[in-house]
Amino acid sequence: MRAHFNSDNYAPVLPEVMAALAAVNEGHAPAYGGDAVTARAHAALRAEFGEHAHPFLVLTGTGANVVSLRAMLKPWQGVVCADSAHLNVDEGGAPEALAGIKLLAVATPDGKLTPELVDTRLVRLGDEHAVQPGVVSVTQSTELGTVYTPDELEALADHAHARGLLLHVDGARLANAAAALGVSLRTITTDAGADVASFGGTKAGLMMGEAIVVLRDELAPALPYLRKQSMQLGSKMRYLGAQFEALLAQQRWRPAAEHANAMADRLAAGVREAPGVRLTQAVQANVVFAILPSGVAERLQREWGFYTWDERTGEVRWMCSHDTRAEDVDAFAAAVTAAVGETRSA
Amino acid sequence: MRAHFNSDNYAPVLPEVMAALAAVNEGHAPAYGGDAVTARAHAALRAEFGEHAHPFLVLTGTGANVVSLRAMLKPWQGVVCADSAHLNVDEGGAPEALAGIKLLAVATPDGKLTPELVDTRLVRLGDEHAVQPGVVSVTQSTELGTVYTPDELEALADHAHARGLLLHVDGARLANAAAALGVSLRTITTDAGADVASFGGTKAGLMMGEAIVVLRDELAPALPYLRKQSMQLGSKMRYLGAQFEALLAQQRWRPAAEHANAMADRLAAGVREAPGVRLTQAVQANVVFAILPSGVAERLQREWGFYTWDERTGEVRWMCSHDTRAEDVDAFAAAVTAAVGETRSA
Amino acid sequence: MRAHFNSDNYAPVLPEVMAALAAVNEGHAPAYGGDAVTARAHAALRAEFGEHAHPFLVLTGTGANVVSLRAMLKPWQGVVCADSAHLNVDEGGAPEALAGIKLLAVATPDGKLTPELVDTRLVRLGDEHAVQPGVVSVTQSTELGTVYTPDELEALADHAHARGLLLHVDGARLANAAAALGVSLRTITTDAGADVASFGGTKAGLMMGEAIVVLRDELAPALPYLRKQSMQLGSKMRYLGAQFEALLAQQRWRPAAEHANAMADRLAAGVREAPGVRLTQAVQANVVFAILPSGVAERLQREWGFYTWDERTGEVRWMCSHDTRAEDVDAFAAAVTAAVGETRSA
Amino acid sequence: MRAHFNSDNYAPVLPEVMAALAAVNEGHAPAYGGDAVTARAHAALRAEFGEHAHPFLVLTGTGANVVSLRAMLKPWQGVVCADSAHLNVDEGGAPEALAGIKLLAVATPDGKLTPELVDTRLVRLGDEHAVQPGVVSVTQSTELGTVYTPDELEALADHAHARGLLLHVDGARLANAAAALGVSLRTITTDAGADVASFGGTKAGLMMGEAIVVLRDELAPALPYLRKQSMQLGSKMRYLGAQFEALLAQQRWRPAAEHANAMADRLAAGVREAPGVRLTQAVQANVVFAILPSGVAERLQREWGFYTWDERTGEVRWMCSHDTRAEDVDAFAAAVTAAVGETRSA
Repeated sequence: MRAHFNSDNYAPVLPEVMAALAAVNEGHAPAYGGDAVTARAHAALRAEFGEHAHPFLVLTGTGANVVSLRAMLKPWQGVVCADSAHLNVDEGGAPEALAGIKLLAVATPDGKLTPELVDTRLVRLGDEHAVQPGVVSVTQSTELGTVYTPDELEALADHAHARGLLLHVDGARLANAAAALGVSLRTITTDAGADVASFGGTKAGLMMGEAIVVLRDELAPALPYLRKQSMQLGSKMRYLGAQFEALLAQQRWRPAAEHANAMADRLAAGVREAPGVRLTQAVQANVVFAILPSGVAERLQREWGFYTWDERTGEVRWMCSHDTRAEDVDAFAAAVTAAVGETRSA
Repeated sequence: MRAHFNSDNYAPVLPEVMAALAAVNEGHAPAYGGDAVTARAHAALRAEFGEHAHPFLVLTGTGANVVSLRAMLKPWQGVVCADSAHLNVDEGGAPEALAGIKLLAVATPDGKLTPELVDTRLVRLGDEHAVQPGVVSVTQSTELGTVYTPDELEALADHAHARGLLLHVDGARLANAAAALGVSLRTITTDAGADVASFGGTKAGLMMGEAIVVLRDELAPALPYLRKQSMQLGSKMRYLGAQFEALLAQQRWRPAAEHANAMADRLAAGVREAPGVRLTQAVQANVVFAILPSGVAERLQREWGFYTWDERTGEVRWMCSHDTRAEDVDAFAAAVTAAVGETRSA
Repeated sequence: MRAHFNSDNYAPVLPEVMAALAAVNEGHAPAYGGDAVTARAHAALRAEFGEHAHPFLVLTGTGANVVSLRAMLKPWQGVVCADSAHLNVDEGGAPEALAGIKLLAVATPDGKLTPELVDTRLVRLGDEHAVQPGVVSVTQSTELGTVYTPDELEALADHAHARGLLLHVDGARLANAAAALGVSLRTITTDAGADVASFGGTKAGLMMGEAIVVLRDELAPALPYLRKQSMQLGSKMRYLGAQFEALLAQQRWRPAAEHANAMADRLAAGVREAPGVRLTQAVQANVVFAILPSGVAERLQREWGFYTWDERTGEVRWMCSHDTRAEDVDAFAAAVTAAVGETRSA
Repeated sequence: MRAHFNSDNYAPVLPEVMAALAAVNEGHAPAYGGDAVTARAHAALRAEFGEHAHPFLVLTGTGANVVSLRAMLKPWQGVVCADSAHLNVDEGGAPEALAGIKLLAVATPDGKLTPELVDTRLVRLGDEHAVQPGVVSVTQSTELGTVYTPDELEALADHAHARGLLLHVDGARLANAAAALGVSLRTITTDAGADVASFGGTKAGLMMGEAIVVLRDELAPALPYLRKQSMQLGSKMRYLGAQFEALLAQQRWRPAAEHANAMADRLAAGVREAPGVRLTQAVQANVVFAILPSGVAERLQREWGFYTWDERTGEVRWMCSHDTRAEDVDAFAAAVTAAVGETRSA
């Protein structure tokens, strides 16, 4: 492959994070989070998300979502989410199979819920035959590369709370959203009224690790039990803690996410005018979605790494990450433009 | 209430069924299905569904669906179904919460799946991140009162089998469908290629009871365990067996279902021409769906029993059963027509 | 078989109950418990268990246990129970498989928990790696035919409550216990401090049906949802209600249970002195457990119906029910005595 | 703390492993195991466990157990295991709550199953009311620090297979067992007849990671789906692969495990003769269990890190790891001896 635009999971670990791992690799340390490094990471998360935040480090994004939702739901409640949510389409059925959660998915044009869309699933309240809506879950930035503004999130939180629901923010790419908006992580979680959020480390440049941030006190006591039971408690926790400490130090996540976002912008700019290329979503974070003339994607995939997002429409996804190089973006944009041109002249 | 059109569950037990219950209430009998009455019911079911059919009596329709699907699915597989399926909207989340099953729901105009609609969910095959489609589930007659023809079912079965999926028939109202089509129960299950079907007793006139009919030998050995574990094994089984024996004797279910269907037809005919009444579905079994001018349903509900089906559109459901009386239908049709008329003249 | 001592589930339905079923089989009635008959049954249950009791009718004993425990537990909590509990050994793994519940089983000499036995499982409190004890579940009368006194139950309730646990009473044979003790149902549930109890109808003489009785207000709102989701909500509820109404009228359950208990006493008396017969449990309710010389049980089972309880020790179980006849008991006792005698003289 | 004997999870990462992580931190690499590093780790695992072995890297020991058992069991089957098994007492109820698995736990004197002990749970075969035994799970080395010989494992595998059960080896400390026995990993898994085994990386010196090794071909296709659904699929898999590659290179795990085992031996030798110290288990791997005079453990815990294993008997656990230092062992042994002496002279 000349370069990968498959996923931000293809990127390596930020050098500062790798250095932090080496730095804590000395001597014994209590397991399961009782160590000093984890304590510092927790403090850094509280500094970022607010002193009342309850941080819990877990291993995967799916794990972060499942543990969070288990803490937020009663057994007969479901989750209103976009039908493009990772929760709904990319977690192998973990919410249903492992946590028994029904997802009340809503079609959206851009991966974003609105109060009006949420309302379509707020029906049959009090009817024992119907799963009751309990949580609204949004992804920030969304799986389609769009970003909720703070106002949009606050409106959703208010809407949910006014109806007795809670707001969950799947922040697997929270850094990209905050970078795109030029705001703090807190602005789009705590301050917007989220009840539980996650802060994704892996896509932001860690080796592995997500932080669940519980923002509603009464939900916190369940988390240690649910994290362990959900197989998301790492034993040598200092190595998760060290990564988060490094990622949060001087907001190391911000330039990394800004770079990824800028590369997606650059790629979109490079192909937007190419006849035959249709960008299908606003490019607000670190990913570009496009539909190409028939056959073009397959030809490009021989040399460039990227996924077909929708096998029925042929829509493709080009994801950028903290280490995507401008020259690769430019070369890829040129390759796309050339491939589309060949098709049209054929 | 002057009369109920809420549900076929509001109807009483067929007199023959009640007599059969009294008749077996004598002396000891082995529990859990080891008795002679249950053996006779099983024989009657095999006579109806084919000698290779494996019948298992269970307690509720939700139970029948969950037990059947547990037998048909691997843990990472999901069920393609109409989004109006009972499974999806009326089982309190049992498939997800108790069996861990993800439903791959499809919007339909009339509650019926087609091969083309099924195909929309046959994506990402072999992708470990996506729930894999494992079963196509249809409801016969559907929750919207429509009926699959034998050819339509066969096409779905062939389509499913060709792609490695199984076909499940939720037959909570199988009797109504067979009566409507003028065919045997077997024609729309076994002969159409279903792998597991249910034959609903409760809505057909029993006090309680559904029969799961396993039509694929290799699935049968799991059923006793799954039925018990799923809390669907009745202990004094003779009383379930007696009901099914009575229902199947001389196809007692057929005139009962024909009557219910005929009453729905009569009701539809009585209101179809009333200005302002819009019937929203073809009336093929024992139920009528309609949208009335704003406020009319609420006025009618003061004297007549029926449910609002869709609280967002105001669509109402009028269900008939084996004991619905023609005079009640006529009076209700007249009441609807009058109420609509008042609205228009107001 | 000359007579069955297999199970109280082999017995027929009490005539009063069958009459009540016939009596309500008239006209339409709201489904799912909205009918007048169910309302009367609920009133009768409240009269029996206390005006604050919240009754919920369900379909099976396993269902009653699973629904009750789902309402009582958080996801990381388990149930302290005797290892002979129905919950642990006779529910096909429903608590674990359908409700995710870990049972913290304790070996007991007689099927009865004590505060001391409970304490053996009250360990590692607050340790996220260990399932936390949340409920103490007792069966009354026990699976081994023994009976808790009101004082014993109260001691368990106090012990549980003092440690933040709840007390569940599996009352599949609550009638037998109350009859044996000469007390009301309330004495051994509500007044003893139980938080949730069940009152078993099936073994007491119904066709089918168990009543969950929630005795702690804050647990009640979950029940309708959990009952439906757990596939324990009958649709034509009037037929469950009618049975309970008949069973509770003038405490119809009491003479039925007294008879069953008396038959077990008579059987025990008839075989106790037979050389070679060892009764293994106190006979306090409607069942006798015994160990016979090798080979005797198998010979007897050719003509008499009963189960081998423990295939490793050869212990057998002889269960009596409301319709067990004294002459059958006497004949069986004579047969046992004779069979044992043959063995010894052989 | 002067030194920790709490857990092998308190130890740091082996230097070779940390170096390997740094070495692969370069450029893009396919996620979810499609990378070259993971391929090399898989090859190394096949070299160790046999060419037919199917390796799957996962994140935690609990995850390895749950994923493995989900692949091995039908929904109505349970797992025969020692009651001291990690599965039973240290996984927060994950087997039950997330996978619906009932554990058929057996009391053992030393944490080891035998065919005779297994037989105590092979009862009620074919009885739908009872969870059917499906898997025998052993831990090697056991949670009590004992080790199965290859012959013992083979006898268990043969016993299980002859009865239609499968053998699972929880190898969270497989390296310690192999080191103790002086055999290969293969000898105590593949060659002994195990159907699925795990090879624990974390306790062997990794930062994080366990390898599930499927040794029965027909079970392998389910693993990718079950791993993802069970939230055990790491995205940046190269970093798991690199760790295993380093651990397996020249059997790096062996001297690490030998050292840990030797330290436990040294500690046992140092305290065995101290009057009042009772070692409660044979010291065959890297842990020592002891009962001390009342109050002594608490005093020692002020300066030395170790866990009370059984809060009811006061039994303590002293665990050694790859970096436990001989001088710390000697100082601790002296401290124990002194503390015991003070008690006796007091």
